[in-house]
Amino acid sequence: MATSRSGSTRVRRRPTRAGVVLDPGLIIDTALRLIEAPGGNALTVRRLGVELGADPTAIYRYFRNLDALLLAIADRLVVESLDGYQPGPDWEPALRELAGRLHASMLRHPRLAMLRAVRFTAGPYELKAADLGIGLLMSAGFSAAEAVRHYRDVIETVLSLAVIDASELTPEQQRSEDEALTSAYASLSETEFPHLAAAREHLPELADSAVPTVLDRLIDSLAREAGERRKT
Amino acid sequence: MATSRSGSTRVRRRPTRAGVVLDPGLIIDTALRLIEAPGGNALTVRRLGVELGADPTAIYRYFRNLDALLLAIADRLVVESLDGYQPGPDWEPALRELAGRLHASMLRHPRLAMLRAVRFTAGPYELKAADLGIGLLMSAGFSAAEAVRHYRDVIETVLSLAVIDASELTPEQQRSEDEALTSAYASLSETEFPHLAAAREHLPELADSAVPTVLDRLIDSLAREAGERRKT
Repeated sequence: MATSRSGSTRVRRRPTRAGVVLDPGLIIDTALRLIEAPGGNALTVRRLGVELGADPTAIYRYFRNLDALLLAIADRLVVESLDGYQPGPDWEPALRELAGRLHASMLRHPRLAMLRAVRFTAGPYELKAADLGIGLLMSAGFSAAEAVRHYRDVIETVLSLAVIDASELTPEQQRSEDEALTSAYASLSETEFPHLAAAREHLPELADSAVPTVLDRLIDSLAREAGERRKT
Repeated sequence: MATSRSGSTRVRRRPTRAGVVLDPGLIIDTALRLIEAPGGNALTVRRLGVELGADPTAIYRYFRNLDALLLAIADRLVVESLDGYQPGPDWEPALRELAGRLHASMLRHPRLAMLRAVRFTAGPYELKAADLGIGLLMSAGFSAAEAVRHYRDVIETVLSLAVIDASELTPEQQRSEDEALTSAYASLSETEFPHLAAAREHLPELADSAVPTVLDRLIDSLAREAGERRKT
């Protein structure tokens, strides 16, 4: 067992209450494992202490509170998603890849998706991602102010859409939603919903993720703007 | 007291356990009020029964389960957001207004934002909004299949971003995030984060809502595509 979430294999320490050596990385790994355990409950310092075999209060030597620990986990997931990222010379595919990596990472960690979309961790890796992305947009010819706004637009859109993509319905909810949609689409009144009736066979696509097409549209729009800028 | 959520003033019924006359609208209004009460807890059929002065099981005569009731509430909020919407002849401002109305409605009902973004209610008003939006895009010259995809892209993006906009940090979280950001921005290393350092004074804009600029970019992109289509 004991593969860490970052994919590297390593032997899990089996500390005892008597003398565990804590460090922030071990606490982050363990907390992430607890959060993502099947049927996992809310993370508490008490549960974390039990899992670490340490006195719960020891955790506060490394993290001011549970919120600070959650932000550190979120920051850790950013570095995981940047692992192996080597942006080439062209800003457009590089930004697309950065956004795609963050989106994929959100789907790999659905229980942390909302936290990551809402909070700015100010951690070193989230800052690094922002530095990379803003740098790419500045290399496209945008001013620093524009690059900040465009980076925010692309990343916030992708993260927000990923929250929706990562959300899971219960089997009961999914079944009843499927039934409701099938029945609604089958019985669409052409007088009441003329356009839906005309588009009937395409309506299931309403449930597909908007990420690929929206990301294309946003980046294409930025590329067009950068291209026009260069002409003048 | 007793202004219903739809804005119309009406006297709240004061039913007794002995003989309350229930109807779906009353149940929806009451459930919405419970969800949005200050410090409100999760909606339960029991609490709803108490508030209605009715036997909780009576609610199941109108809604199969709590999930069905929540979807009906979500659908009610769509009609609320469409109230007074009169799309003009031009699809572009009309679609922008439709998206803007849905976004504003999400912010008015933050506790239901996630539900509304994730679930497709298949209710009459959500279908009506989709019929309107898809109809606008078809009037722009898009095929039924394209109109469905473009509607999904615009609406899903706006609703997803609204989930983030509607989320609220606790005062403690907000304070610690503000402190962390202020301190991170003030101490940015120019060697480690050269682009962030160059954009330092603009970084607070990372926290602004992306909705206005992203919505502009998406609709402009669709308008350009529709315009090119018309030329050929």
